[in-house]
Amino acid sequence: MVPDIAQLERRARALLPREIYDFYAGGSGREETLRANVKAWRRRWLLPHVLRDVSSVDTSLSLWGTALRTPVAVAPTAFQRLAHPEGEVATAAAAAQAGALFVLSTRSSCRIEDVGAAVAEPGGTWWFQVYVMRDRGLTAALVRRAVAAGAAALVLTADAPVIGRKRRDRGEDVVTPAEFFVNTGPLADAGDAEQAADVTFADIGWLSSLGGGIPVLVKGVLRPDDAQACVAAGAAGVIVSNHGGRQLDRALPTALALAPVAGALRDGAAPAGPAGPAGRSAVFVDGGVRAGEDVLAALAAGAVAVFVGRPVLWALACGGAPGVRDLLTGLTGGLAHAMALAGAASLADVPGLAYPGDTD
Amino acid sequence: MVPDIAQLERRARALLPREIYDFYAGGSGREETLRANVKAWRRRWLLPHVLRDVSSVDTSLSLWGTALRTPVAVAPTAFQRLAHPEGEVATAAAAAQAGALFVLSTRSSCRIEDVGAAVAEPGGTWWFQVYVMRDRGLTAALVRRAVAAGAAALVLTADAPVIGRKRRDRGEDVVTPAEFFVNTGPLADAGDAEQAADVTFADIGWLSSLGGGIPVLVKGVLRPDDAQACVAAGAAGVIVSNHGGRQLDRALPTALALAPVAGALRDGAAPAGPAGPAGRSAVFVDGGVRAGEDVLAALAAGAVAVFVGRPVLWALACGGAPGVRDLLTGLTGGLAHAMALAGAASLADVPGLAYPGDTD
Amino acid sequence: MVPDIAQLERRARALLPREIYDFYAGGSGREETLRANVKAWRRRWLLPHVLRDVSSVDTSLSLWGTALRTPVAVAPTAFQRLAHPEGEVATAAAAAQAGALFVLSTRSSCRIEDVGAAVAEPGGTWWFQVYVMRDRGLTAALVRRAVAAGAAALVLTADAPVIGRKRRDRGEDVVTPAEFFVNTGPLADAGDAEQAADVTFADIGWLSSLGGGIPVLVKGVLRPDDAQACVAAGAAGVIVSNHGGRQLDRALPTALALAPVAGALRDGAAPAGPAGPAGRSAVFVDGGVRAGEDVLAALAAGAVAVFVGRPVLWALACGGAPGVRDLLTGLTGGLAHAMALAGAASLADVPGLAYPGDTD
Amino acid sequence: MVPDIAQLERRARALLPREIYDFYAGGSGREETLRANVKAWRRRWLLPHVLRDVSSVDTSLSLWGTALRTPVAVAPTAFQRLAHPEGEVATAAAAAQAGALFVLSTRSSCRIEDVGAAVAEPGGTWWFQVYVMRDRGLTAALVRRAVAAGAAALVLTADAPVIGRKRRDRGEDVVTPAEFFVNTGPLADAGDAEQAADVTFADIGWLSSLGGGIPVLVKGVLRPDDAQACVAAGAAGVIVSNHGGRQLDRALPTALALAPVAGALRDGAAPAGPAGPAGRSAVFVDGGVRAGEDVLAALAAGAVAVFVGRPVLWALACGGAPGVRDLLTGLTGGLAHAMALAGAASLADVPGLAYPGDTD
Repeated sequence: MVPDIAQLERRARALLPREIYDFYAGGSGREETLRANVKAWRRRWLLPHVLRDVSSVDTSLSLWGTALRTPVAVAPTAFQRLAHPEGEVATAAAAAQAGALFVLSTRSSCRIEDVGAAVAEPGGTWWFQVYVMRDRGLTAALVRRAVAAGAAALVLTADAPVIGRKRRDRGEDVVTPAEFFVNTGPLADAGDAEQAADVTFADIGWLSSLGGGIPVLVKGVLRPDDAQACVAAGAAGVIVSNHGGRQLDRALPTALALAPVAGALRDGAAPAGPAGPAGRSAVFVDGGVRAGEDVLAALAAGAVAVFVGRPVLWALACGGAPGVRDLLTGLTGGLAHAMALAGAASLADVPGLAYPGDTD
Repeated sequence: MVPDIAQLERRARALLPREIYDFYAGGSGREETLRANVKAWRRRWLLPHVLRDVSSVDTSLSLWGTALRTPVAVAPTAFQRLAHPEGEVATAAAAAQAGALFVLSTRSSCRIEDVGAAVAEPGGTWWFQVYVMRDRGLTAALVRRAVAAGAAALVLTADAPVIGRKRRDRGEDVVTPAEFFVNTGPLADAGDAEQAADVTFADIGWLSSLGGGIPVLVKGVLRPDDAQACVAAGAAGVIVSNHGGRQLDRALPTALALAPVAGALRDGAAPAGPAGPAGRSAVFVDGGVRAGEDVLAALAAGAVAVFVGRPVLWALACGGAPGVRDLLTGLTGGLAHAMALAGAASLADVPGLAYPGDTD
Repeated sequence: MVPDIAQLERRARALLPREIYDFYAGGSGREETLRANVKAWRRRWLLPHVLRDVSSVDTSLSLWGTALRTPVAVAPTAFQRLAHPEGEVATAAAAAQAGALFVLSTRSSCRIEDVGAAVAEPGGTWWFQVYVMRDRGLTAALVRRAVAAGAAALVLTADAPVIGRKRRDRGEDVVTPAEFFVNTGPLADAGDAEQAADVTFADIGWLSSLGGGIPVLVKGVLRPDDAQACVAAGAAGVIVSNHGGRQLDRALPTALALAPVAGALRDGAAPAGPAGPAGRSAVFVDGGVRAGEDVLAALAAGAVAVFVGRPVLWALACGGAPGVRDLLTGLTGGLAHAMALAGAASLADVPGLAYPGDTD
Repeated sequence: MVPDIAQLERRARALLPREIYDFYAGGSGREETLRANVKAWRRRWLLPHVLRDVSSVDTSLSLWGTALRTPVAVAPTAFQRLAHPEGEVATAAAAAQAGALFVLSTRSSCRIEDVGAAVAEPGGTWWFQVYVMRDRGLTAALVRRAVAAGAAALVLTADAPVIGRKRRDRGEDVVTPAEFFVNTGPLADAGDAEQAADVTFADIGWLSSLGGGIPVLVKGVLRPDDAQACVAAGAAGVIVSNHGGRQLDRALPTALALAPVAGALRDGAAPAGPAGPAGRSAVFVDGGVRAGEDVLAALAAGAVAVFVGRPVLWALACGGAPGVRDLLTGLTGGLAHAMALAGAASLADVPGLAYPGDTD
């Protein structure tokens, strides 16, 4: 059955302490981007093909040599032990079981090595999301640990030089227990772990060398010119994202930003970075994806894969690892169903299935 | 008087068991296409002509040599005995009396031959809708029976390689009584009657040969390129349809899809299929048509005729054959009235009467 | 003070029998054009000029040699004695006192000659609206009487070859007392007075000769091509109208239709008809105008003058002739105020003050 | 923390007498421009840059040689003593403390010289807004006093040749105490102080000579052609404004008007006036700005600085000078935060950060 994510969220809301629910669910400013992210996908009409043989539908793909069973991937989110005692380890294991990519946050509340082991056991794939911290030595140490633990790519978050001001904060902010900072350990100065505000395109190369050549993706890109600059600086691709409406409020919804970015990387000069899927720089997207039809619309507009954030947290809160696995297989099933109805037997058939105009 | 279809639906809803009403009324996914189908027609403004002689308005047309008194036609819908004991036989007879085309579903709950006889008596026209089933022999047998019983054309449904997941299903699905499967009879394997997922353009030719040369239409086309491919493969035309919002949710509303498809067939290369009305491939449309003004807008945008589905079921449930006949003559009257007010004395005057822009 | 037309309508609704209020207020079909007419003006943003000398604002104009103090004119509406015992005589006198043009309906419930006298006394201007009736002799007789009584132009209603079906009719239709048919008198056959459905462009010339050369306008034009055809057939201009949403429902709102029609007559070939204002064919508009800003938007989009219908009926019902005069001077005052704020000292300064795009 | 202006307004509404709240909050006509001003900014999506060094964000700017710490400026509003006993003196001092520009209204309820002194003490900058009154001698006297008191520029209000008719006036209008007319004193004829309706482009030069060469800005410009005419007549720039929706209702929202005006002055012929920021005529904007993201959108669309009106009145009513200072520093902080998230380290980085399309 198609997962009903709205219902899942209602259940999680009832289960979680209010400040934790708000911490996950909320956005910055007036939450206009938060709402618009969801709404924008629903305004993308689909243009299905008919009379294609869809007796078998294949959602699998290959990313830089790694096979995945689904383009539905888990976005990096912070402190998952706030949602469930097993936190990132559970989520990562569930993703691996579902054949889905998992991205581990710098703000993980589980040890990097434990997550790596949880993914390796079922033979999965994970990437490491990097906040460049004020203390770059600390940052480099984490990256090296992640690579050693099996991260297959690095994701540089570029849209958070400062922390977005959340609407729902009320003084009674979420207090993250000290025990959750398992990867950095006690620091001489808490400020060292804060995000650096002076990260630039040059840091793509720095990360790339730290990673020993594994792909570096830049997350948080909404502009075609920035996407081209990332690739020119060595990125293997970009993730079109506005941080789920948690950073700059009124940033363009990702469903509107995706196609121009994908077009710029498709039409741009040959990238300097490592060749992505189909020999090109790869474009990913997140933000507001809540159903198989949303995933299809995103792939149709040029995304290689699609990241899901909050729904994974609701599934984790309600059902632990099995809940996350069911969510991912459910969304993948919804995608496969939509692909069949749209005449797409494989992901290669998907581009172009979205209506180009903006309608409501 | 113009039929008030919203009121008719309310009456049918009160009469029918809830699960049957939901089975007919519901759509797939979030029902976005279901709602958008209706809304999209209402956003098409009309551009009436003035100072034309409309002292007599003629809604008649000829389709491949068959005369019809109205371009309002009955769309194929399944298991009409769920709505009324006389089912498809009543609907078909009513359409024939109204001078309207009737399309019989593969999932008819009346015997094909009984329907053929009911239409023949008042001298009407009917077509047979074809789901290609997994057992192609079974499919061919049904098609041959339909042709023998007088079907004047075949309608290949192309947008249902799998069954759309309905929003309103709740485990307590409609259980269709075994007695309704009157045309297939007891099967060795129920799966044989399920829709095949490997139907392709080549099947147009297969059906055409089964039909002995009667026109084959493809139903469920939303894309201009697919429409051209259908014609190139031998189709006499296409029905622009998204299956009433019951298959791929978020598929483009038909009011938006119609004009580009009509344009593609008008401007495309000479079709290989049999010549349709005015020597060209014919374009039809269904989905969300609820008033004479909707019919006029559809014809103005390039449709040869317009299919109506759910309203026929409500009329059948509330009034049997007379109810269906009143609905069809009422809608035709509403069309004639709108034509007079728009300065169109015949259907040939209608193209171009719709405002090209999308407004609300 | 600017007249509050919404409040005036509420007062009239309370005063009038329900079926009479509904007869005036209602529209055809689903009343979509009725509602859209009003809404469409409010979506036209104004683009005021600054730093113009507006110490005196002049709303006067000249139409075919006749001076008017305001471009706010009274649209023809039927049977005004349903609203007030003095009916058209009161309305016409009030318009003349306000320096506004009055158009008398063929369906007047006062004698043509009485209306002519009521306008002549204060030195006003009136036109006669013509429904071509099945009995053309009867039609011609009425037109000759109107011309003899002082009508300065003829308005051929072209959008009513049949009567639009009203949504609010409930069997209990307004029964117009026989005494109201004061101009046709007892007829051998009531059908003789029904509107003819075979009126064509040729009737423009017929009316012109009946009128002895006074201007003939065509009312109900929404299409640029029809407007050009009217002028080519001898019309002095057109009134962009959809009959207040009472004829073809879903006809284009007049605020959307106006600019293309005005553009077509401005750019078209030299008209064969008599020269209108500024030596060109004149374009007028009605439908949904409820405030001085609406009038300004209409003039800015190319109208020479603007007709108001229902608000006049509400004013007549609530206040008789003085009520109508106050409404017309109030709307004119609202227009003058808006002109001053938009930097327009005279009507010649108004074209171009509306924003070209469609926004909400 | 980002100031919550909606909450501030609610508090002010509870504090102030209703007629004073309505006097400030209301707009003209149906208040369509009033509402649209606010809504239009929220429809401007932002297009942030990533991977820029924003470790220090600078909101400062220079206007004709004067340094300001923020592009958030105080719009001229009348009779501020209605909101708070200290009136304009408090507001002006608060702006100076915040490093923000203050514009004093001709309708100030504090003496011009007292305001000048209040700004001079913390070393701030203020401009004088000029209503050209019927008595030009009186006008000239006020302007000379303002210049003598330290006004750094003159702002000619051009959109108020007459007073807009307010929707919320109910006979029980605000009666401004005679003691508030501190700058004009008792006049032989009250009409002398009314706004002149014959102000033209020539008055720009008159004001410029009265001001001894300090910049003259024209406020109330919505059209590119008018903006060019202002500059050609000697203006140093324009303020895109519709008077907060208080003059011509249905005037274009400023968020829609800004970019075309900025484009016209950027692309136009070399201005005759004094060179503004970056050697060009300066474009400012007001109307509906309620958050740092609105300010960023305005600057991105070409504004040099942004004026805020009603929120300053609410802050003044609720908190006097400290309240105003907190509002201005709060909005500036919100802007700086948004700039950091958009990759803009200084105002020079801001142009182009807004999405060109109109979306909702």
